[in-house]
Amino acid sequence: MKMTPPKGMNDILPDEMRLRDRVQGTILETYRRYGFVRIDTPALEDSENLTRSEGGDNLGLVYQVLKRGDKLQSALESGEQLWDLGLRYDLTLPLARFYACNRAKLPEPFKSIQMGRAYRAERPQKGRLREFIQCDIDILGTDSPMAERELIAVTAEALLALGFEGFTLHVNDRRVLRALLDAFGFAREDHASALIALDKLDKIGLSGVAEELSGRDLPGDAVDSLVAFLGQPEGPEALRSVVGGLPELFALENLVADANALGRGAWTAVLDRTLVRGQGYYTGTIFEISLPGYPGSVAGGGRYDGMIGKFTGQPTPAVGFSIGFERIVSLLMERPDAADGPKRLALLYGQETPFPALFEQIRALAETYVVDALPLQDNVGKQLKRLSKAGYQAVKRADEADIRPLW
Amino acid sequence: MKMTPPKGMNDILPDEMRLRDRVQGTILETYRRYGFVRIDTPALEDSENLTRSEGGDNLGLVYQVLKRGDKLQSALESGEQLWDLGLRYDLTLPLARFYACNRAKLPEPFKSIQMGRAYRAERPQKGRLREFIQCDIDILGTDSPMAERELIAVTAEALLALGFEGFTLHVNDRRVLRALLDAFGFAREDHASALIALDKLDKIGLSGVAEELSGRDLPGDAVDSLVAFLGQPEGPEALRSVVGGLPELFALENLVADANALGRGAWTAVLDRTLVRGQGYYTGTIFEISLPGYPGSVAGGGRYDGMIGKFTGQPTPAVGFSIGFERIVSLLMERPDAADGPKRLALLYGQETPFPALFEQIRALAETYVVDALPLQDNVGKQLKRLSKAGYQAVKRADEADIRPLW
Repeated sequence: MKMTPPKGMNDILPDEMRLRDRVQGTILETYRRYGFVRIDTPALEDSENLTRSEGGDNLGLVYQVLKRGDKLQSALESGEQLWDLGLRYDLTLPLARFYACNRAKLPEPFKSIQMGRAYRAERPQKGRLREFIQCDIDILGTDSPMAERELIAVTAEALLALGFEGFTLHVNDRRVLRALLDAFGFAREDHASALIALDKLDKIGLSGVAEELSGRDLPGDAVDSLVAFLGQPEGPEALRSVVGGLPELFALENLVADANALGRGAWTAVLDRTLVRGQGYYTGTIFEISLPGYPGSVAGGGRYDGMIGKFTGQPTPAVGFSIGFERIVSLLMERPDAADGPKRLALLYGQETPFPALFEQIRALAETYVVDALPLQDNVGKQLKRLSKAGYQAVKRADEADIRPLW
Repeated sequence: MKMTPPKGMNDILPDEMRLRDRVQGTILETYRRYGFVRIDTPALEDSENLTRSEGGDNLGLVYQVLKRGDKLQSALESGEQLWDLGLRYDLTLPLARFYACNRAKLPEPFKSIQMGRAYRAERPQKGRLREFIQCDIDILGTDSPMAERELIAVTAEALLALGFEGFTLHVNDRRVLRALLDAFGFAREDHASALIALDKLDKIGLSGVAEELSGRDLPGDAVDSLVAFLGQPEGPEALRSVVGGLPELFALENLVADANALGRGAWTAVLDRTLVRGQGYYTGTIFEISLPGYPGSVAGGGRYDGMIGKFTGQPTPAVGFSIGFERIVSLLMERPDAADGPKRLALLYGQETPFPALFEQIRALAETYVVDALPLQDNVGKQLKRLSKAGYQAVKRADEADIRPLW
């Protein structure tokens, strides 16, 4: 039998698990306090829903579950698709399906919390997991710009509650990006290609982006204009000189100002003209949070007004923000107090101790300590040393009254 | 796109989710207080581990995940097995693998908590889910009979904390069952078949079991002796008359007495000579908890001393107890106060309200209420009625100081 977990997936040991539970509890409690309610969906989704979702690269990473019984037999014979279910690659598609299916029973707007596992068959590499937890909040059924603000405020609140500070919220808008590319002379069908190159600016720098754009069979004039634009200082002025009085740009500046007022210096917001985000389904505002000194982001989201309508036929505005739970946990694990738990007491009993009486003691001690009942060993001194090393703070013999500290 | 979740799997709506989180919290807190520590494993396991586990009927119910890329291609061409991963059908096999893989980092004995999803492609029927949550505690690395007692005491404690009372713990021992069948003259290779029939006594009655046994190609004398035995009153006397002074029977009576002392009348324990439990991997004590007035069990477990050794080559004693989370939740959902949550307040704001100021109010109110910020509508009277109907207990206008109750 194989002892290791499947490649790219992790066993979680007790200390890390305690931290994970604490982090999930803090996030959940913060979200709930602000009127969000938790829902849940199966980890498996219908294969067609997954295939037709605009999941970008993630569609190639779906774990496919074999059909069963007669259906598998006939698929093998006819050469049809062999799978009918797949593991979800994120929590947004399941949420859209959930909302479409249950909307008659949900308040409007619907403010949802989701915390659950998602799966991607990524090529294994450091920090990329094939099974991971996402923590999402979404507001469905309103196009009010308040929704973005509420998501940002509550997500920031959760990060602050976890002890993070000085983070940066990056905001952009897909419609501003589109207007920009239009103005530079990119054809609509070239937008996706240009955006993929643009998205890499923070990784490969301006010259890298320029090179990548040149290699992508895009009109040279448009590429030159884009590269020249990226060479100018950041900030709304350069943008305005290209897209003029675009209302979405105005709204974006407004959002940045409101976010900075919310942050009160504990965190800040910037308009990030190169923020793209990979998923194909975003339609408006997009945002990410980064931590000082760490590459990549710890949270990301945006508006996706088109997805729910694909299920219902009725357009339904939607916006979400997702905390990268695994990222957050791995950052918190580096802190020295990460694994701190409640006081642990070892209750040592002789073999002759009757269990019901012993459990009375356990029950009473459990009011104050996390209690482990362990058989008393012949060499008590050695046992106490081992218990101290194993992290017990206190010890009691079942046949004595005293509780003794352990160092 | 398909709006419903996959067959046999459920979307969880907010009220039920709040209950589920509360139940999980209560169980987890109880387990932790008694020195158990939570761990986690991937929902996917290697196909060989699943296939070689002694999972009984569950092996036919595994969701199989297709190989990917070149491996899939070559499997299709060569006619090899198409899958290399499968969704776990319970949490016991993953725990055994986890323990084998990580035992150098774990205390001994190791008292683990697991709460997670498991999957079985069951034929859909009422009360049978294809994705479900299990809550397990296990004690690994000790063959002390204290381990069974601790699991029973802590599981009972969790059920009491959830508000259940008057439940019955059924205990038996696979070794007593085996001695019984030996004494009646069943050959060892017929034991499994006889046990499957015996297991159905509470569903199909004595005559049903007799009929089933006769249809199973078992020696007639042995069947007659077993049926005659089952016709006698329950209790250890009848057992003792067959298996005599078997030490395992003595230990079982002892366990029942200790459990009854623990229960102090709030719950009771019985020696149940027909308790079998389906899994092939049990080696000693087995137990289940049933509720008065409800068929089936809400918790079950037993000793499985052989499983971990299959991974490590070293025999390691192990015993576990699992709460049927889905069963518990569906019972609690029937209670009138199941969905009760904290007080909800609707904060109504005009479109001109600046968000940072609004969020100051939300943050202050969130100390006391679960707060939903909602746009103030033209017809306030109508909106208040709708909010009251939607379950809000209080309302406040952002531009006024008063908080008003809603009925």
